[in-house]
Amino acid sequence: MTSRFQSIFHIRCPAAAVEARARGIAVEQSVECPIAAIDDPRILTDIVGQVAEITDLGGGVFEARIALAVETVGGDAGQFLNMALGNTSLHDDITLHDMVLTPELETALGGPGHGLAGLRRRVGAEDRALTCSAIKPQGLAPARLADLVARFAAGGVDFVKDDHSLVDQAYAPFAERVPACATAIRGSATRYVPNLSGSLDTMREQLHIARDVGLDTAMVAPMLIGPANLQALVRDNPDFAFFGHPTMGGGRIAPALLFGTLYRLWGADAIIFVNYGGRFGYAPETSRAIAERARAPNPRLKPAVPTPAGGMLLSRVPELLDFYGPDTMLLIGGDLLLAHERLAEETAAFTQAVARHSFPVLV
Amino acid sequence: MTSRFQSIFHIRCPAAAVEARARGIAVEQSVECPIAAIDDPRILTDIVGQVAEITDLGGGVFEARIALAVETVGGDAGQFLNMALGNTSLHDDITLHDMVLTPELETALGGPGHGLAGLRRRVGAEDRALTCSAIKPQGLAPARLADLVARFAAGGVDFVKDDHSLVDQAYAPFAERVPACATAIRGSATRYVPNLSGSLDTMREQLHIARDVGLDTAMVAPMLIGPANLQALVRDNPDFAFFGHPTMGGGRIAPALLFGTLYRLWGADAIIFVNYGGRFGYAPETSRAIAERARAPNPRLKPAVPTPAGGMLLSRVPELLDFYGPDTMLLIGGDLLLAHERLAEETAAFTQAVARHSFPVLV
Repeated sequence: MTSRFQSIFHIRCPAAAVEARARGIAVEQSVECPIAAIDDPRILTDIVGQVAEITDLGGGVFEARIALAVETVGGDAGQFLNMALGNTSLHDDITLHDMVLTPELETALGGPGHGLAGLRRRVGAEDRALTCSAIKPQGLAPARLADLVARFAAGGVDFVKDDHSLVDQAYAPFAERVPACATAIRGSATRYVPNLSGSLDTMREQLHIARDVGLDTAMVAPMLIGPANLQALVRDNPDFAFFGHPTMGGGRIAPALLFGTLYRLWGADAIIFVNYGGRFGYAPETSRAIAERARAPNPRLKPAVPTPAGGMLLSRVPELLDFYGPDTMLLIGGDLLLAHERLAEETAAFTQAVARHSFPVLV
Repeated sequence: MTSRFQSIFHIRCPAAAVEARARGIAVEQSVECPIAAIDDPRILTDIVGQVAEITDLGGGVFEARIALAVETVGGDAGQFLNMALGNTSLHDDITLHDMVLTPELETALGGPGHGLAGLRRRVGAEDRALTCSAIKPQGLAPARLADLVARFAAGGVDFVKDDHSLVDQAYAPFAERVPACATAIRGSATRYVPNLSGSLDTMREQLHIARDVGLDTAMVAPMLIGPANLQALVRDNPDFAFFGHPTMGGGRIAPALLFGTLYRLWGADAIIFVNYGGRFGYAPETSRAIAERARAPNPRLKPAVPTPAGGMLLSRVPELLDFYGPDTMLLIGGDLLLAHERLAEETAAFTQAVARHSFPVLV
């Protein structure tokens, strides 16, 4: 009996068409050829995808649960996405809404190496919410960026990350920016988190530079570098914790599934995602679902740290802490940078607001 | 004066909102912070994105042309996508419809190493259309897959590729499948094209195996491995030609832009894409636009070979050749496999139909 995971698709189509559409997905995501072309009975029973259930969600949308063989994936995070969604992403009227994983897939893909507890330990934070900010805009020289890091550190923020636009540009080469910023956190509890980019080779060289200057946390964009490369970085660098950035994460995968479930599964220790009420149009329930999946108890996967971001304001800290709870990292970038010369003080106001927040007592 | 490329977005929003939305994208895709937080005048003039033009397309959709500085990209294909679309992909109501590149970006990203002429040369095809098929279903053992390769080769097909689901599964490990399939083409003009998967490290090991058994063409899925890793493979392996597979290519990027323009720019020599009238819902004009972009004359980029696929039928060969012209590769997989024991003969019917086709004389 073959072990199967499920991809749960939402299909917008006429009721009369949905069974054929679902069967089409089951074939597409497994053998990708006419069933009549298959003459091996084991492939028919064990490899061909199966339509487990179809539900009418109303409004012309149907949910189709497609059961796919775990053995088609092996342990590769990229192939997992290839089999879970792959070619079916090419249909305009289908989205991957959710998945049902199996324990063996969770074990094979492995999840975060450090997770919530590991990131708290890095900054000596015990059980409070974590704080994060970002250095930007791109175009600043390394010394200017390092100055921002120093001010954030003076304000007591836990993590200062590169903006995800900072790569290896001529105006701030990685090999100059990262040592300068690493120097700027010396003597503080703050961690600086450089953004890795480029091919796996390039990212590995960047990690060496970061390690050489004493860093132990880095950021990557899983949908830009490919999930298998995140998996390789996590496996090969157990001393490093990784932040996952959401860039290029829009499209055919529901945000709660992609950021909450898959980023964690692929090994992100902190998951940066879009907060409701900021620059992006997420509903509160979408942001909440991402956060809850990122840290939900799981015997095989460490909890990741949900890190809401995207136009967050210092004035919203109490509301956001009440909404997300203490097992969270708040990331405020631009709103702090508006303070210019008072950046350290504004950052201190942020970190103190987080430290002093009293959470409602749950009875 | 800073050199800029353009990302051309389609935004579905009220007319009163579109200017603010466009300005928001220009900031998001460049400095990603409030303009008031920027105190360096060079960043304001040279780095911050600019709204070049907004056009009302009717039906509640607007086109916004956003001009972004080339120096924010450098020469990295991943960063190019990060700056061109990146976080803006997280908006449900925005798609990246097209781009205006610059000569320096085209030169930096480089395009195909071999292209149409190189693939024709590999199989001695002069100026006719090329033919391709695929071995599947996954679940077959290496010997069975190699037998399919031998039959396709006996039928005279130019290229036999792995199905994109074939990676390194237990039932057909890469290190067993690829040598077996390479042996199966010996003595024929057919090229076998293995599918590379996993991290860049894994793909590089796979390329070594492929090279060791005499192969010189491989397939990758650019949206699954990350564009920067395709770029690294192309740069580091000038003896290999690369097929680009469309899996995971659906979402926020218009197909003509992604497959026709970007896959070519990133270095795919052959671009597999969805044919109209097959398993996917592409309109003829979408398929045609991909093909025309893939091979459009460009002084800096070799033409790639447009390779329509996805439920193509042998009976449609004349129609498809008339539609796409001779600078094309037709990929027929499942329809040939339905012939079972007569696979070589059915393949011969395919290759002969392509060889004998007379194209209408253009006057």
